[in-house]
Amino acid sequence: MASPGSGFWSFGSEDGSGDPENPGTARAWCQVAQKFTGGIGNKLCALLYGDAEKPAESGGSEPPRATSRKAACACNQKPCSCPKADINYAFLHATDLLPACEGERPTLAFLQDVMDILLQYVVKSFDRSTKVIDFHYPNELLQEYNWELTDQPQNLEEILMHCQTTLKYAIKTGHPRYFNQLSTGLDMVGLAADWLTSTANTNMFTYEIAPVFVLLEYVTLKKMREIIGWPGGAGDGIFSPGGAISNMYAMLIARFKMFPEVKEKGMAAVPRLIAFTSEHSHFSLKKGAAALGIGTDSVILIKCDERGKMIPSDLERRIIEAKQKGFVPFLVSATAGTTVYGAFDPLLAVADICKKYKIWMHVDAAWGGGLLMSRKHKWKLSGVERANSVTWNPHKMMGVPLQCSALLVREEGLMQSCNQMHASYLFQQDKHYDLSYDTGDKALQCGRHVDVFKLWLMWRAKGATGFEAHIDKCLELAEYLYNIIKNREGYEMVFDGKPQHTNVCFWYVPPSLRVLEDNEERMSRLSKVAPVIKARMMEYGTTMVSYQPLGDKVNFFRMVISNPAATHQDIDFLIEEIERLGQDL
Amino acid sequence: MASPGSGFWSFGSEDGSGDPENPGTARAWCQVAQKFTGGIGNKLCALLYGDAEKPAESGGSEPPRATSRKAACACNQKPCSCPKADINYAFLHATDLLPACEGERPTLAFLQDVMDILLQYVVKSFDRSTKVIDFHYPNELLQEYNWELTDQPQNLEEILMHCQTTLKYAIKTGHPRYFNQLSTGLDMVGLAADWLTSTANTNMFTYEIAPVFVLLEYVTLKKMREIIGWPGGAGDGIFSPGGAISNMYAMLIARFKMFPEVKEKGMAAVPRLIAFTSEHSHFSLKKGAAALGIGTDSVILIKCDERGKMIPSDLERRIIEAKQKGFVPFLVSATAGTTVYGAFDPLLAVADICKKYKIWMHVDAAWGGGLLMSRKHKWKLSGVERANSVTWNPHKMMGVPLQCSALLVREEGLMQSCNQMHASYLFQQDKHYDLSYDTGDKALQCGRHVDVFKLWLMWRAKGATGFEAHIDKCLELAEYLYNIIKNREGYEMVFDGKPQHTNVCFWYVPPSLRVLEDNEERMSRLSKVAPVIKARMMEYGTTMVSYQPLGDKVNFFRMVISNPAATHQDIDFLIEEIERLGQDL
Repeated sequence: MASPGSGFWSFGSEDGSGDPENPGTARAWCQVAQKFTGGIGNKLCALLYGDAEKPAESGGSEPPRATSRKAACACNQKPCSCPKADINYAFLHATDLLPACEGERPTLAFLQDVMDILLQYVVKSFDRSTKVIDFHYPNELLQEYNWELTDQPQNLEEILMHCQTTLKYAIKTGHPRYFNQLSTGLDMVGLAADWLTSTANTNMFTYEIAPVFVLLEYVTLKKMREIIGWPGGAGDGIFSPGGAISNMYAMLIARFKMFPEVKEKGMAAVPRLIAFTSEHSHFSLKKGAAALGIGTDSVILIKCDERGKMIPSDLERRIIEAKQKGFVPFLVSATAGTTVYGAFDPLLAVADICKKYKIWMHVDAAWGGGLLMSRKHKWKLSGVERANSVTWNPHKMMGVPLQCSALLVREEGLMQSCNQMHASYLFQQDKHYDLSYDTGDKALQCGRHVDVFKLWLMWRAKGATGFEAHIDKCLELAEYLYNIIKNREGYEMVFDGKPQHTNVCFWYVPPSLRVLEDNEERMSRLSKVAPVIKARMMEYGTTMVSYQPLGDKVNFFRMVISNPAATHQDIDFLIEEIERLGQDL
Repeated sequence: MASPGSGFWSFGSEDGSGDPENPGTARAWCQVAQKFTGGIGNKLCALLYGDAEKPAESGGSEPPRATSRKAACACNQKPCSCPKADINYAFLHATDLLPACEGERPTLAFLQDVMDILLQYVVKSFDRSTKVIDFHYPNELLQEYNWELTDQPQNLEEILMHCQTTLKYAIKTGHPRYFNQLSTGLDMVGLAADWLTSTANTNMFTYEIAPVFVLLEYVTLKKMREIIGWPGGAGDGIFSPGGAISNMYAMLIARFKMFPEVKEKGMAAVPRLIAFTSEHSHFSLKKGAAALGIGTDSVILIKCDERGKMIPSDLERRIIEAKQKGFVPFLVSATAGTTVYGAFDPLLAVADICKKYKIWMHVDAAWGGGLLMSRKHKWKLSGVERANSVTWNPHKMMGVPLQCSALLVREEGLMQSCNQMHASYLFQQDKHYDLSYDTGDKALQCGRHVDVFKLWLMWRAKGATGFEAHIDKCLELAEYLYNIIKNREGYEMVFDGKPQHTNVCFWYVPPSLRVLEDNEERMSRLSKVAPVIKARMMEYGTTMVSYQPLGDKVNFFRMVISNPAATHQDIDFLIEEIERLGQDL
């Protein structure tokens, strides 16, 4: 199964990387290098290709094939006559890499070539002349390439090709015109930190095997609690695999706080519990209630005003109603930054109600939490400091690579009591260090991915002020978009007024619909506009933005801006593109 | 806040990287390069340092400081007189990197320097002369370095230093003598795939934003189901954030299958449900029961034989008992590869009982699932094909980087019915592609990390036969260890007989204890031996192996082997090291 132990370093060959039919990584690099100013691009290409001519510009759609990598000659003579060291990956397999004997050299070359592929992708991601996505339908993509898993190993040339192919069909989530999700952008320091995390390849359950990461989690969560406004940053928390799980934690802990016996006895031992959240809140609240044995019927959806904010009087009315039925209200989840409208529930009013009725107040600030970093915008979360728990996803508005979601809890020790099972094979009580750093037993997970390092390193690199600048800029861009379209022909706003977050919700009304009366037929036709424009965007690959219906409102675009690469010109482009793709509808 | 827009490329300086007081990345590379055969190391060093002398060998404990990176000169004259382009990271900030204007050049240099740091770490990880861990107590580590988060940004020189410092104190989980957890080793193809995953930075919820990864998840889960033995690989599944969550999914789905009304009505609407698992099973079953509102009291622990295998007659007895009390048995979780003993429950007998009483059969093969890849060892999981669901963590025995855990379900569609909430902002029903590939609504999570690519790429690179070879080798090494110590003076086996998995459980009995009678005092003293030896291992940094008590058995070592780098010599070393560190106790 292993490739021959010798022979993978072939000497004397000059061909390969310069051949236009067989472009190597060098060619990919050369294309990148051409973008450098000051003529260094040509020099680098010359170094890579020797005296061979610079390769023709690639068409851009075919990924270059990885073939062989030419090790730099280190002699002092030019032109030198040394034999060139080539690595022919067609003769190398995974078994030739470390920890194989003599595996260092091919390992370093292989990883460096992977890195070249990644760096090329990174550079392309920010290039507006490249597609956001090279879209293929699922059946096409399944047929276009052989993705099947087999018994026999493939050589490293094939592995490098798979990397290139995978990236060829990937969404460029860092592209300046990718607006499709709440998480967009590709931060370079965050990316570096995530590579390091992969390389460290460890688990968060004990200090023993993740000393630095455990400390960084401690430091970072404390800082986040300080920003929330809990005195001295006291409290508890965890990085969890996404906002839905963070919200589920909040529900779990709130229930335990009120009825600790639920841990042993289950829901049979407690009265019927009721959770309250707005009709615009994230679906994870219901998902969590279903999982935790509370049931979705016990999640009461509170009415929102026209801007998508929870109406406090309706909350109080429903709490009283539930109590009159003999049920026990145990949790109110207010939302700071709803998914579609970007609305902020009135946290102070909610806090007053929670205090009055002694109910756990959770704030789902998965999307809006980032605004706490901005002196200009943090007032929108006034009252968050009165919450018992907060979900805050730095992987959304703060641009940290996926995933990075924190659940912060005001009362220390509750998470541990709620979730601990004292597994003696992990949390030995006779270890030689301070066991308070073995934080794994507060989690629902056993093994837990290291999600903190990318946030910590980005924070070091940007400072809180850097996050602030990013957030202020995104909100300014959203306002720019709003100002352009609010009075522009062919656009209708889903709700009035300046956006509170970066969500801008609107219909594009094609010319043929503008003359119609506001009746059911028009609604029916309007509902088909956004899906068609979106499909065309993806087929052209020019930009991506989300759409959805909500309540009685038919499909509308939800523009969100969290991408640090986006500029005013990209917003202009989006508008032009929507009109270009939708005017015939 | 941003560094000056110009001036980060300084020309004309020759100093820096060759200065022994101020070693740059070049030096680190040079040390690596020296290990190459054929004299290329010296040539590479010469290239890096020009005519400066090769730097003295590093002491190995201090990480090199990153200072400036010398861009390769691309002229044809040697010795050339071109000004050398240096990047002075002290004048560069994150804001100078992409998507900044003119950000390509510093970005590529920065990411390449990060990569150099990582590659150096990778090479060191496999070097037996380096420490597994440079251990510091939490308070020491907190004081030794400033980890705090501030308002102001740091420059990229500092960021590179943080990367080096973080790795300096990290556990080398790929080190040939790291045996501490079920997940050990550092696979080069898996690492490359994880870097790519970070770079693609997307989410698994829809085909729209993760087309390739969604297809690869489909292909890979199908293959895993085929290997389990479900006809045609039919069924369902998901990659989840760890085995504990996978087990929780199984419990959730089993409950829903029996009482679908639980989703809306909660546990109040269903009778008391009982789950059964062995006393040696993983604590996540109880953790899951607590979270799901079932309660830990409703998890009945079934007795095990002396090898840690569930006793089927006790299972049947407890099921009958529960039914007599009017409770409803809804799940049996058998374990294939227990955490401490590595025991395989008798799956065929368990399957018969589950069939007889119509109970969902789950197999927690988080640790043992890898043995399905081995023709020699897969008989240990006979009966797994009769399970309704299986947890299988490729990040354990198959060496995939953390995290990679799969939950496989025999009945298709059940996960979707159980968990879906139809969020219209994600799962629009009028998209232009086949919506069956939007698999996100079957998950508990909303955003979900891409965990499949590293497994898929490793499978391509190793083939099923490569995984088989790895697993057979690890089991052979475990048997080698067992054969050495079973009759060796000073060792006592925790259970008799050849290990079934790679778990080898034993006491080391220091000379002073060997003469004592088998009484309470001896037990008490013996219980303190493993913790002391372990603490010394960590302080010396020579190796790491786990210990724990279990039931009435005092602290014993649990050796496990999943590390592809481990050899017979490393096993010999472990024994010598235990004796060296423990003989005076």
